Formats: sequence, structure tokens, C-alpha cells
Amino acid sequence: MDLPSTTMQRAVDQLARLPGVGKRSAFRYALHLMQMNESEVNDFADAVIRLKTDVHRCKICHSVSDTEICPICSSPKRLRNIVCVVENVQEVMAIENTQQYRGLYHVLGGVISPIDGIGIHDLTIDSLLERVQNRHEEVIDEVILALPTTMEGDTTNFYLHKQLSPLGIKITTLARGVAIGDNLEYTDEITLGRSIANRVPFSA
Amino acid sequence: MDLPSTTMQRAVDQLARLPGVGKRSAFRYALHLMQMNESEVNDFADAVIRLKTDVHRCKICHSVSDTEICPICSSPKRLRNIVCVVENVQEVMAIENTQQYRGLYHVLGGVISPIDGIGIHDLTIDSLLERVQNRHEEVIDEVILALPTTMEGDTTNFYLHKQLSPLGIKITTLARGVAIGDNLEYTDEITLGRSIANRVPFSA
Repeated sequence: MDLPSTTMQRAVDQLARLPGVGKRSAFRYALHLMQMNESEVNDFADAVIRLKTDVHRCKICHSVSDTEICPICSSPKRLRNIVCVVENVQEVMAIENTQQYRGLYHVLGGVISPIDGIGIHDLTIDSLLERVQNRHEEVIDEVILALPTTMEGDTTNFYLHKQLSPLGIKITTLARGVAIGDNLEYTDEITLGRSIANRVPFSA
Repeated sequence: MDLPSTTMQRAVDQLARLPGVGKRSAFRYALHLMQMNESEVNDFADAVIRLKTDVHRCKICHSVSDTEICPICSSPKRLRNIVCVVENVQEVMAIENTQQYRGLYHVLGGVISPIDGIGIHDLTIDSLLERVQNRHEEVIDEVILALPTTMEGDTTNFYLHKQLSPLGIKITTLARGVAIGDNLEYTDEITLGRSIANRVPFSA
């Protein structure tokens, strides 16, 4: 695709850097932005720039925040003895939306993946170990591993388990099984198999 | 979805204004932008702002251009007696990519759609009629109507035909038929029916 305007070409190239956005969608976005009025486009660009200047990573859990300590870590209503370890901010939001969890989080910022060049020190693992070891501010007695069920997620779980188990805390993980409303017939064998192996007492 | 950062929320809201982008994708884009370094984010924002300040509409065909007159309209290699009327810049690019058309274009900027409040004067129809009538700079003797085959496209075609036919020029439209490589079995009835009605002499 050869655009008749180099300025537009540059905008399309930039928009196509967004994850999952191809040249064709980027071009559609560019045309849409062109049709917005000037103050709207400035608002758009300003909001993007502020992502870099005004959004911080929480000093405790590494989630996103406008302040040094995020609203969850600074809330007096949260249980301070449970930490749920997740890959990214998306997972924090997904769990928050369930309204079933009242503990704290720890955002790793990824999972160990040698192929992508992501090692232990690219993640916030040291900070997690420090949180668990440092028993002054918060006394953590349970860490929930809620990482993805991929090879990389499993590797990271394994590493975290090895590091955390000498510290004498409870290490748990999310229950895996047949999703609520799902038909057994269409559930994959691994999930169904595990849901039988890990069956729980029936409660009426 | 309730974000822990209002700055991030604002960026997500802005990104979700792009066509076809929901809150979830916008959030993914925002996280991606946050992970880019500062100069990259500034380049991104700058490219977006320049869309509004540096990209012009060609004075003749209303396509996008860095200059007052677009490269197609100012090219001495193009046939100046044929104008292809399209809805938007996307269609100019699609036709250019075929490398089968050497004439000029006219970008309407939409099609007549009373439901969306788009009337004749919101489009560049007057400018098209002027181009055809004004026989000083370019003498147009064929107008190709390449608008979408929707109710609105048909309405616009009908209106343009009514306005253009008294001017004594040739008015054509794109051939519609079974796409090359398509199986007749899976071609919709309207297309297949029309391709039989409008059959052409076989050329070996």
C-alpha cells in the first residue's frame, strides 16, 4: 500500500505498531483521526503522551497507578496477608471484576521466557521475594500463583515455588476445571481430566 | 472495567474512539504504549497530531496529500479525460494497487445517507460537477461511478447520473460479476444472476 501522503504514511506506520493492528486498520484509524476536529486530535495525542509521563508503577505491587502507591495497596479494606501473583495489569482488573478477592496483588510484568529474552531479573520477582521476606510492613502468609497455563507460566510457577517454599508460607494456585455453564461434551480432555482428579466435596 | 489510574482511563477512553476498537483492545494498546520508551511515544503522538496539521485534501480530487494538489492529479502521466468517483481514499488506494487505471479520481467523502444526516452538500458533488462542466483545465469525457453497492451508494449513483447525463459525457460503472477464482456454487444469487445477464463475449 503506497499512500499519497508521507505524513499519513508515517501516522499509519506508527498506528500499526499497536499490538494486533495491521496496515489496513492503521489506515482506517488514521482517516478517522483526520476527520476528528483539531482539539479532539490534540486530546487524543495528549492522553497518549501522559501515559508515559503521568502513569506510575505502584512501588509495592507494580500495577499501574496515578500515585506512588496504588489504590489497592493503600486501601485499609484489603487483606494484607494474601498476595496474588499475576502476569500483567489486565489480570488484576479481571480478578477485581469478580469482586471475590480482597487481598493484594503482585504484577510480575511478564513470565520467564528465554526465547523472548525475558529472564528472572526482567520481572519483579526479587521485589516479590522481598515483600514476603520483609515482615515489617505486611506479614504475608499466602501467595496465590495466578499465572497463565503456558510453558512459560509453568516455568515461572516452578521457579517461584522453589524460591517461596523455604519461607514457610502457603502457596496456592487458581482452581482449574470445567467452566460454569460449559458442556462436558465440548470441554477439552486435559481440563476435564484434571477436574475429575481434583474433584471437590459437593455442597448443596 | 474500572482502571486503577485515571490517566490510563483517559487514554483508554481516547483509544476506544478509534473505529472498531473496544475498551479491551484500547487497554491493550495503552499498556503497549506505556511500555514503549518516551521518544517512541512522542513520535507516535506527533505523527497523530501532524495528521491534522500537515495532511491536506487535494484541491482537485479531495484525496489526501502533503501538497495542495495530490501526486495523482499533478502527474503528467495520468489520463486527464477520465475521472473515477469513489467514496473515500481507501478506494483510491485499492484501485491504484491494481495498476490497471491511469485516469484521475474524485473522492466524494461519503455517500448520500439521510439517516446519517449526510446530504448532497456534505459531499464533494458540487466540485465534481464543476470539474466536468469547466472545460478549461481538463476536458473530462468519462466518469466512472465506483461507489459501494449499498442503498446509499445506489442513491448517490442515481443522483450523480441525473446531474451528469445532461452534460453529454460517458457515464460508466465497475463490472460486477463472479470474482476470479470464486466457485459458482458459493457465489450469491444476485451476483451470479447479474453476471449471466451481463455476460460478455468470450476472448481466448
